[in-house]
Amino acid sequence: VSGFSVENLPYGAFERDGQTHLGVAYEEAIVDLHTIASAGAFDGVCERAVLQAPVLNAFLAQPPRVWHAVRERLRELVAQGVEGAHRVERAKATTRLPFDVADYVDFYSSEQHARNLGRIFRPDAEPLLPNWKWMPIGYHGRAGTIVVDGTPVARPLGQRKPANAPVPAFGPSTMLDFELELGFVTGGEEIFGLVLVNDWSARDVQAWEYQPLGPFLGKSFATTISPWVVPLEALAPFRVRPVPQDPPPLPHLRIENDFSLDVELEVRLRSAKMRDAGIAPAVISRTNARELYWTMAQQLAHARSNGTKIRPGDLFASGTISGSQPGSYGSMIELTWRGTEPLTLPDGEQRAFLEDGDEVTIHGWCERGGLRLDLGSCSGTIVPPAA
Amino acid sequence: VSGFSVENLPYGAFERDGQTHLGVAYEEAIVDLHTIASAGAFDGVCERAVLQAPVLNAFLAQPPRVWHAVRERLRELVAQGVEGAHRVERAKATTRLPFDVADYVDFYSSEQHARNLGRIFRPDAEPLLPNWKWMPIGYHGRAGTIVVDGTPVARPLGQRKPANAPVPAFGPSTMLDFELELGFVTGGEEIFGLVLVNDWSARDVQAWEYQPLGPFLGKSFATTISPWVVPLEALAPFRVRPVPQDPPPLPHLRIENDFSLDVELEVRLRSAKMRDAGIAPAVISRTNARELYWTMAQQLAHARSNGTKIRPGDLFASGTISGSQPGSYGSMIELTWRGTEPLTLPDGEQRAFLEDGDEVTIHGWCERGGLRLDLGSCSGTIVPPAA
Repeated sequence: VSGFSVENLPYGAFERDGQTHLGVAYEEAIVDLHTIASAGAFDGVCERAVLQAPVLNAFLAQPPRVWHAVRERLRELVAQGVEGAHRVERAKATTRLPFDVADYVDFYSSEQHARNLGRIFRPDAEPLLPNWKWMPIGYHGRAGTIVVDGTPVARPLGQRKPANAPVPAFGPSTMLDFELELGFVTGGEEIFGLVLVNDWSARDVQAWEYQPLGPFLGKSFATTISPWVVPLEALAPFRVRPVPQDPPPLPHLRIENDFSLDVELEVRLRSAKMRDAGIAPAVISRTNARELYWTMAQQLAHARSNGTKIRPGDLFASGTISGSQPGSYGSMIELTWRGTEPLTLPDGEQRAFLEDGDEVTIHGWCERGGLRLDLGSCSGTIVPPAA
Repeated sequence: VSGFSVENLPYGAFERDGQTHLGVAYEEAIVDLHTIASAGAFDGVCERAVLQAPVLNAFLAQPPRVWHAVRERLRELVAQGVEGAHRVERAKATTRLPFDVADYVDFYSSEQHARNLGRIFRPDAEPLLPNWKWMPIGYHGRAGTIVVDGTPVARPLGQRKPANAPVPAFGPSTMLDFELELGFVTGGEEIFGLVLVNDWSARDVQAWEYQPLGPFLGKSFATTISPWVVPLEALAPFRVRPVPQDPPPLPHLRIENDFSLDVELEVRLRSAKMRDAGIAPAVISRTNARELYWTMAQQLAHARSNGTKIRPGDLFASGTISGSQPGSYGSMIELTWRGTEPLTLPDGEQRAFLEDGDEVTIHGWCERGGLRLDLGSCSGTIVPPAA
C-alpha cells in the first residue's frame, strides 16, 4: 500500500529547470503544480499566481474552502492521470523548503519528555514544573534556521561549562542531539498541514545558557523539516481521542471535538562507518504522536490567547515526543540518559551523543484498516563545524 | 540644533498616495527615496528597485559600501536642496514598519536590569545567574508581533497564578509593563542601524510561564520600534569605551576597537486623564545606553557563534536598559518594585503598572559638542483587549 495515494496528496516545493516549483507528491511522482496551474487546471478554483509561486505561503493565506477545493480538484486530476510535463519522478527531484517560515514556536507537549528533561537538568527538584499541566509551555525558535530534509547539519560551536569546570569554554558542541517532533503550519488562523521536525539541540550549550530566558544558541543552528506538508484534511481518518487531562484545562484551552493524531514515528541512525560498510540505518526510537499531552488545537489556542496575530507560514512544533518506554524516547539525551547509558550501533560503535558523519532520519506514517498515509522523512547528516 | 540634520539621515517607510515609500528624515521633511530614485538620483550608486521597495530589506541586503555610497549621495542631495515632489512634510506623514523583521532576538544586557529582575522574580537566590557575565544572555521573540511607533497596544489576555492563589486563572494582564530598549538591524552579517524598542511585557503572564523555556506569551503580543533607522555610520561621533568586563570575555566575545554608544534615553508616560486635562507627559525614567554591559558587536558575535545565518532585517534588541539609580530604571516593574512603590503622576494618579489609556513614549538622542542626533521616538497607547 502506497503512503502517497490519492488519500494523501501532500504539498511541497522542488527544483525544476533552475526554478522552484510547487508540487504534490503522488505515488512515485510529483505533480508539478506550477505547470499544471499554468495550463489552467485550477482556473475557477484558485488563482494561478498562488500555485505558480516558489513557496506555499500565498496558498496558505487562502481561506480553507480554497484549500479544500484545490484538494478536490487534485483528486480528480490524479484520478484522470497526470502525464507528460506535469509529472516528474519523485526520487530524482531535489526538494526545497515548502514555505517561508514566518515565526517558529516550539512547544514542550510530551509529558514523558518534560519529566525526563526535568530529571536530567534539575535532578534535585520535582521534574514537572507547576505550570506544565496548566498550559502548553513553549518558546520561540529561530525561523531563519529552518532547513529542509537532506540539508547537512554543521556541528555548532558554543559556550558551555561542565559542572566540574571552574569557568566555561568555547568550542564545538560535545553533546549534539536530535529531537523527534511533529509540527503544523498555519494559514491565517487555522492549521493547514503537518510536517516532521527534527529540532537539533546542543545539550551542553543549552544547559549552560538556558536560565533564565530559555534555549537560545543551543537550538538556533538548524531545525530540519520534512519536505511534504500533509494536509490536516487528509489526516481525518487518523484522529483519535486526546489523552485525559488532569487538572481540566481552563476555558481558553477547552476545545470542542478535539483530537490527537495516531501518527507512528521512528528515528533511525546510521554512522559514517555503517554507511561505508553498507549496514542499514538502525532504528533507535519508536513512538506515536497520540501520546502527546497537549493537542495541536490547544497549542494554537494558547499561542493566540494573548491576542497575537498568526501568519501564513507560522510553524508550531510539538516538542520532543517521548513514549513511556526507554526505546520510545525522542532524543539521545533521554535514550542514553545524558550519555551515561550509550547506545550500541549494529557495527558495535557506541553513541552517547551524535558524532560527525552520523545521519539521523525521522519517519512518520499513519496506518489503519488498509489505509496508509506517509508523512515522509526528515533527514540530516552531521558535518564538522564550518571553518 | 536639529537632531535630523545632514549628520543623521535615518531611513524609514511612509504612506504616500496609497503606497508605501522608503524615505529619509531630514529636518522637518522626509526625502522620498522612491520618487527621487525613480528620477535617477542614485543611478550608478544603487539599483532603483532597491530604493523603490516598500521596505528596507533589499537595501539592507546590499554590501556596506553601497550603504555608504547611498549615504554620501544623500548628503549631496540634501546639501543641494530637495524640493517639490521629492519632499513631504514629516509631521503629516504616516510612518510604516521600516523593514520586514526576519528574526527578532532580545538580549538581557543591562546588568542593573538583570539584577533587579533577579531580585524581584527569584528573591531567595543570587540575583545574577552564573552564566550572565560570561555571555550576552538572550532569547528569540516573535518577529510577527513587531509594530511601528504609534500603533495602539491591546492589553493582552493570559494565564497567570498569583503566589497565594491555589490555581491559575485566565484574563487580561494586570501587570502590563513597558521595556526601554535599543535595537539594531542587520544586513547580511553587519549592523546597519539602530532603532528604539519598547518590548511590552505582561509580568503576571511572564512570571507564571517562563520556567523552564523562557518568556513566551508574556512578550509576544506587541513590540514597538521607532520609525527611523539611524545608520550606525551616523553614530560614529558618539562611540564611547565599553564598560569594563570582569571576568574578561572568552575569545569569541573579544572585539577589537569595540565601542558602546552614548545615547540618552527617556521614557514619558501620559494617562488618558492627563491627556484630557492637557497635562504634558511625565518623564518617568532617564538613562543612557552606554551603561549596557554587553556591546552590540558582542551580542551579534554571540548570536552568530553557533554558525547560524544572520539575515537582512534581523532585529536584535538590547534588553531593558536600567541605570543604577531608581529614576533610571527602564520598566515599571523596576520603577515601582513590582508595584509595591507606585509612581505618582502629575495629576495625582498612582501607577503600579500600565492602565488602559496610558501612552508610553521612548525618546532617544545623542548630543556632544554642538552636534545632536535624534533617534526619534517610539510610542504606544494601551487599549482594552480586543473583544
